[in-house]
Amino acid sequence: MKKFINEIDAVMRESLGGMVAAHPELLRVEFEPTFIARVQRASKKVALLSGGGSGHEPLHAGFVGRGMLDAACPGQVFTSPTPDQMLAAAEAVHADRGVLFIVKNYAGDSMNFQMASEMLEIENATVLVNDDVAVENSTHTTGRRGVAGTLMVEKMVGAAAERGATLMECKAVGDRVNAATASMGVAFTSCTVPAAGRATFDIGDDEIEVGVGIHGEPGRRREKIKPASRIVEDLLGAIVGDLKPERGSEVLLHVNGFGGTPQMELYLLYHCAAEQLRAQGFKPVRSLVGNYTTSLEMAGASLTVTVLDEELKSLWDAPVHTAALHW
Amino acid sequence: MKKFINEIDAVMRESLGGMVAAHPELLRVEFEPTFIARVQRASKKVALLSGGGSGHEPLHAGFVGRGMLDAACPGQVFTSPTPDQMLAAAEAVHADRGVLFIVKNYAGDSMNFQMASEMLEIENATVLVNDDVAVENSTHTTGRRGVAGTLMVEKMVGAAAERGATLMECKAVGDRVNAATASMGVAFTSCTVPAAGRATFDIGDDEIEVGVGIHGEPGRRREKIKPASRIVEDLLGAIVGDLKPERGSEVLLHVNGFGGTPQMELYLLYHCAAEQLRAQGFKPVRSLVGNYTTSLEMAGASLTVTVLDEELKSLWDAPVHTAALHW
Repeated sequence: MKKFINEIDAVMRESLGGMVAAHPELLRVEFEPTFIARVQRASKKVALLSGGGSGHEPLHAGFVGRGMLDAACPGQVFTSPTPDQMLAAAEAVHADRGVLFIVKNYAGDSMNFQMASEMLEIENATVLVNDDVAVENSTHTTGRRGVAGTLMVEKMVGAAAERGATLMECKAVGDRVNAATASMGVAFTSCTVPAAGRATFDIGDDEIEVGVGIHGEPGRRREKIKPASRIVEDLLGAIVGDLKPERGSEVLLHVNGFGGTPQMELYLLYHCAAEQLRAQGFKPVRSLVGNYTTSLEMAGASLTVTVLDEELKSLWDAPVHTAALHW
Repeated sequence: MKKFINEIDAVMRESLGGMVAAHPELLRVEFEPTFIARVQRASKKVALLSGGGSGHEPLHAGFVGRGMLDAACPGQVFTSPTPDQMLAAAEAVHADRGVLFIVKNYAGDSMNFQMASEMLEIENATVLVNDDVAVENSTHTTGRRGVAGTLMVEKMVGAAAERGATLMECKAVGDRVNAATASMGVAFTSCTVPAAGRATFDIGDDEIEVGVGIHGEPGRRREKIKPASRIVEDLLGAIVGDLKPERGSEVLLHVNGFGGTPQMELYLLYHCAAEQLRAQGFKPVRSLVGNYTTSLEMAGASLTVTVLDEELKSLWDAPVHTAALHW
């Protein structure tokens, strides 16, 4: 295993320390228990809190800041954070208007966030994100997995909270974005969790895993590599089949790299996906292309489509200032 | 070779097409000959133009926009663009205040940009970037190579041009940033050029290439993997030894991923490098961490240090709106 690390046990502390050192105007970190929060506690708004296993960076800590999250709780790599992290973060950032937890649907995350929700003595609610249309139930999940569409939920709810929406209004926006969003990905290679020291799964030199999860969980099928446009056909077929947008719908198209795929290929995927969506009568009017919900150094990518309306478009366009998204 | 491509010959067209489709408010592309330019031609400023082989994205097309470049000329992967691209781009974007070419020091780039400079019937000048302190002369280079420090030159000269600096003032800023900037990188893996279909070089499972070039050119030495903090010591030793900043100097510290290294490791490198700089009496007051000057999917990273003064700090902080940098 070749990685830029010193000791396995110090990876999280040194990486989060580096992130905060690189963005001192934006972020602060606590370590006992661990969470990342905005340097300036927001006032008069619902506090938005997310978290999950590390190894998916910039998700979630890269989305802490004005217009998105108030705090993020990173677990160990591919391991859920614990309720004490969520409680400490919620108490540190809330502003007497309630706390909304945004949770990717994995058994560990959903159980731990539920415990935190019950223990927290502040009004709170939860949005469960389950945008991955690849499979029902999976290695770590009952129901559908939450993947790259989580970014859309965090961005749009973040804008609503900044505009003064109540806790229940924020939850309603989050549930609505989740329902309007679907994703599916494909892996070319595995990734290596530092503490494991070996590849999470094996895959042949000419094979791809269609519908892979962001921890390397199996997808729908293993098949031979094929042209990008045909991979995109498969992914969009599943996504559009799930969302069933009306003809003429405006959509946000997100091409998400898993960490090890060059930008040249991600934009090539965008080209194929946008053309196919247009050919089916949809209008990709907003885009996001890059590594946002990663699986360490996995080569591969996912497509996410969010069906837009005027409100969601305006929430997407609203200003955001975080380490990973800034406009 | 597993890549998201359709046909080798279509990679550039489809990838650049996807980039422009994803950023229609920012970018336009021409294909005969090929260049990327701002949608809105700037007026009353020096036109800044860069380019180079593809495969280093987001460099340079990702830096076209307000506050940085006016146009970028991408060659085939790891291959210089041609003078006709540079001439067409310069004629399309100039605003009667002259054209500044920003060129990474590689034999092909420097020869082709020089031809363009001589043929162009518009007043023009060139900044040659050679920030890589790893080696003198190399596979494709006489003198030092130009690598990730090119971003600092493009950003700071971009801000100066936007403020109305003359052609000679822009060139002076560029030369000054180049002199104040030094970089060095290390590779863990090779990359695969699509048209070649196999790894550019071989490297052992426990080996690293110290001082690697951004096309996989050899560096100073091949050695065994070691802790991140000791790799950083080697890179910073060479960089600081070259720049010899005064004690107490403020610096910009850029951790650049080559494409296949997770963000978690890049921030860990930032942590190590910022601590070591502080211990040596320097002040890392500005930062940039991410994949900006890549070598396709190569795993590895480089460090870049720019010694700042009040003018350079202000040029760095100035607003920028491109596909890859936005603040």
